[in-house]
Formats: sequence, C-alpha cells, structure tokens
Amino acid sequence: MGLKVFAPASVANMACGYDVLGFALNGPGDEIIIKKGGEKGLKITKITGAGGKLPYNVKSNTAGFAGLKLLEHLGLQDEPIALEIHKKMPFGSGLGSSAASAAGAVMAINEYLRRPLAKRDLLKFAVEGEQIADGAWHADNVAPALLGGIVLVRDNASLDVHKIPVPRGLFATVIHPKIEVLTKEARAILKKNISLKQCIAQTGNIAGLVVGLYNSDFDLIGRSLKDHIIEPQRASLIPNFYTVQEAAMKNGALGCSISGAGPSIFALSNNSLNAENIGNAMQRVFADNKVDSKLYISPINLEGTQLL
Amino acid sequence: MGLKVFAPASVANMACGYDVLGFALNGPGDEIIIKKGGEKGLKITKITGAGGKLPYNVKSNTAGFAGLKLLEHLGLQDEPIALEIHKKMPFGSGLGSSAASAAGAVMAINEYLRRPLAKRDLLKFAVEGEQIADGAWHADNVAPALLGGIVLVRDNASLDVHKIPVPRGLFATVIHPKIEVLTKEARAILKKNISLKQCIAQTGNIAGLVVGLYNSDFDLIGRSLKDHIIEPQRASLIPNFYTVQEAAMKNGALGCSISGAGPSIFALSNNSLNAENIGNAMQRVFADNKVDSKLYISPINLEGTQLL
Repeated sequence: MGLKVFAPASVANMACGYDVLGFALNGPGDEIIIKKGGEKGLKITKITGAGGKLPYNVKSNTAGFAGLKLLEHLGLQDEPIALEIHKKMPFGSGLGSSAASAAGAVMAINEYLRRPLAKRDLLKFAVEGEQIADGAWHADNVAPALLGGIVLVRDNASLDVHKIPVPRGLFATVIHPKIEVLTKEARAILKKNISLKQCIAQTGNIAGLVVGLYNSDFDLIGRSLKDHIIEPQRASLIPNFYTVQEAAMKNGALGCSISGAGPSIFALSNNSLNAENIGNAMQRVFADNKVDSKLYISPINLEGTQLL
Repeated sequence: MGLKVFAPASVANMACGYDVLGFALNGPGDEIIIKKGGEKGLKITKITGAGGKLPYNVKSNTAGFAGLKLLEHLGLQDEPIALEIHKKMPFGSGLGSSAASAAGAVMAINEYLRRPLAKRDLLKFAVEGEQIADGAWHADNVAPALLGGIVLVRDNASLDVHKIPVPRGLFATVIHPKIEVLTKEARAILKKNISLKQCIAQTGNIAGLVVGLYNSDFDLIGRSLKDHIIEPQRASLIPNFYTVQEAAMKNGALGCSISGAGPSIFALSNNSLNAENIGNAMQRVFADNKVDSKLYISPINLEGTQLL
C-alpha cells in the first residue's frame, strides 16, 4: 500500500528576514505519493502538473535527490520505492515550489518506512534536495514547508531553525502574477554590499517582528515588516510592484513585500476579511494592467508537510 | 525636601544588535539629587566624581539638558530646581555614563514634580540629553538605563522601544580596562558599508537572540551572541581583546563582546558563579598584561532608574 503527503507552498524572506525567515501556506502545494517499487532503489514513476519540465532522473530531481539522501542516510538506498510527484502549484513563482517537492519527498519516504526519523531531522535531506534546483544551501523555504509555521533559520549552514509563535488571526494574502522571474537573475541582481545603516534598520526590524509575533502586537509587526535592502533592488523585476503594494497597504495590510525571489507578492493582515480585501485590491491592479494573476489566501499553516 | 535617584550603567549593542539592543546593570551608576532651587530655573549646583570634567552649564550638560527639555515640555522651565550629579561610574568606558546621567535627571525631576509623566514618556527627553554628549540620536544606552531590562530599540528615530524577557539566571560580567577609547574614534573607525552576507548573519543572530531570550534557551542565546560586523573593526582599539574574550568563553560565557564603543568588555552567563569565574579570568588577562581593570558582576537590572 502507498501513502500520500501534502507539502505546502511557502513565503521566504518576510520583508525583513532575507534568507533567514519564511512561513508556510495552507495551499497551494505538492502531493507526493510513495508506493512499493518494482525494482531496486528509488524511482520516480509519475510526474503530473509540471508541463514536462521536471526530470525523472532521481539524482537531478529535487524530490528524488532529497529522498535518495534520506535513504542513503538510513542505509536503505536499495529499497524498491516508487515516488510520484503531483505538482499542484506554480514553478518559478517565489512560492517555494522546489522546497515543497523536497519536503514532501522526505516526509513521504519517512512515513512509508514507519518513521525512522523525527520530522525535524528530515530537514537536512530536504535542503540537499532543494539545493539541486536552486544551487544554494538555504532553508528559508524548506524549513517552513516541512515544519510549518513561521520559521527562523538563524544559520543556514548548521540549519539552526526555530519556530516563532503565530498570533491568532494572522492571515497571508499571496498573489502570483503570470510573469517570469528567474531565481538566478533575482539573486544576481543583488548588490554584494549594503550600508551599515541599512543593516541597522534590518536588524531592528527583524527583532521587532519577532517581539511582535511573541506578543501578538500587530502594530509592531506592521512597523517591522519593511525591507530597505532587497525589495528596492528586485521591485523592477515585477511590473506594477509598488502599485500593488500600495493597494495592499490601503486595504489593511500590516505589511507587503516580495515573496522569496518573486514575482509573487505577499501581504499579512490580522483577519481573513482584510486578507480577502487586500487580495482583491492587489488582483485589480494586475488586471488593470492586463496581467493575469492567481490569488491565494491562507492562515499561516502551522503543521507544514502532512500525511493525507 | 529633595530626593535622590539611582541611574545604572548599561551595555549597548549586545554583540548582534549594533545600535538597537542594550541592557542595564545593577551597578555602577549615577546618583542624581533634586532639591528646591534658590533661583528661577534649573541649575546644576553640585557635581562629584567627575574630576572636574563635566560642565555646570545646564545647556551643555547631559543631565542638565535632558532635565531642561523635560521642564520645557511641561511648561515649568522657570521652576527653581537644584540638580546634583554624583558620578559613581567611569567616563568613556562604553558603559553608558552619559546615558545614566540623562536618565537619572529626567527621572528625578519627574518624581520631584510628583510624576506628571509616565516613566516611558521620559525617554525622549533623556535621549535629547545624551545627544549633547554623544552627538548622535540613539537610545540603546538610555532606554535600558531608564527602563531597565534588555531593550530593543527597533527604530531610534521614533524611539520604538520594547523590553524583551530576561531569562532567570542570566548574569552579566563587565570588565573595564583602564585605557582610553574615544567614542568618536570608535565610531569613525567603522566602515560605512558591509557585505550582504554579514547582514544576513547579523539578522539571523539578533532574531535568534530574541527567540532565545523569550524561550530561556541559553544555548541559542550563546550561538546568537556573535558580532561579525563591528567587533572585528573595533577589537584593535582594545589591547588583548581576543585573549580576554577567549578567557571568558573558556570559563563558561554564553557570549562575550565589546560593550558599546568600548573599551569595556561584557560577557553573559547563566548563573552568578560562572559570572564570577569569567570575571576573574578576564581580569587575570589584563593583569598579566599590566593593564588595570575594574570588574562588575550583575544580574540584568530589570527596573532601570529608580528612586532611592
């Protein structure tokens, strides 16, 4: 018998936490199915929803490689396992598509093997998988996709990750405009140096955000959700970004910035009604500019990747 | 009848929170005495412990100017008030000497006037006073000196300050070597630009420190108490800094770095016995190098400036 897990999309950076903060959504996400395989080792037997863009070769597929690394760690690389990837979220959207696949694969395989590892200990294998897609070793999408909640990655190298309390009522609005932004380009555009002043503002804001989340202080969360470093450099990759941001703020967003490397844009608010109003206002801006977009409204997903 | 307040020394920056974090000590500190004055307006009538280095002119004295700004705000600038400053802490030590004087003055005057303002609302007047001494508008010493505890100044311009929980058992060891470091020089030595990588490490660490403080997670506090930006630039101003730091870490410090602009060095630990061992080890390094030093061991002062 096989089993199925759901691995959610996630929003990395969260305005003031470039490379160190991320949170998970309830949806969209990937479904990963694991069954007993017909031959030795891990094989990818089915991929849907990817438009033919994902490789079946285990070693070059995010989910495959993450699963392989986990199996090697367990000494079970010869176990016959069939892995199916059903992508139910967009690629290259800044919503952690590869992170979801990697998180889903390690969770599904671990469950299939009757949980030899704690969920938390699966993280490093999922990060190894995502590295295949992204080239960089970082967990700001994988950690929330796997573990759920709002996650701080204090240090990416050692995967020193911590869940931060999520205030009741905190809602995310995410809009994905149908334009292409390559993660590599979004990374390459960033200047290697910033001013000390920018860093002081960023450290004040990330600390303020953490305090605000612990204290359910929505005003402080709002004042802290600012990005003076990355957003100004990447905004030009997303036509109408500032108009969309302004529409979100006018409709009650606590803060609004780029999700991951973009082009998706996220906003946070303190209830689902505001989250919907914000989403409608953001979508109207894109529609007025003849840009198709897809809207996702979700509380913070506290559980991350789950067995279905 | 007059009254007396005690305003404590404080440690700014806390390794990973340059310009945005600080905490208060139980001692040393300043005593400020307020009495009914003989003539119109605020006058400084006595200064002790300052070696003749502090001006009696209200407008050019940190405590005087802070008090004056408070009195002007209250429309009481003609009230005859005599202010005495008894400095019981070193100048130019990196321990917030001018911040203590400013905090003490506004607290004492507010008490003398039967508390027209809440303590928190005194902060901006104390910052105005400290600006006289330092030239810069920042509250990372004044806020903890006045309010106590570990304080985040999310934004200095708007004085968006927040007290962060202090875990039981957290102790500070502070050593003041008798060498001179000018705050202006310590500021001038800093490069205006840093790498984005350094900023990512700093944001991860400050967020980790805040999470560690909320969760009383001493290991996480220790991993977060790192400064890859300011400390390497200022360490050369303090002979033997790295040897002292190493001695502190070997004797159980969670972290150890420069206090404010130096030359004082602080370490944090999880109990008073470790705090003493750390202090003795630090002092031995300075003694071996023929540098006189003064040691202060204290829990985090939770109350800040207090009426005696």
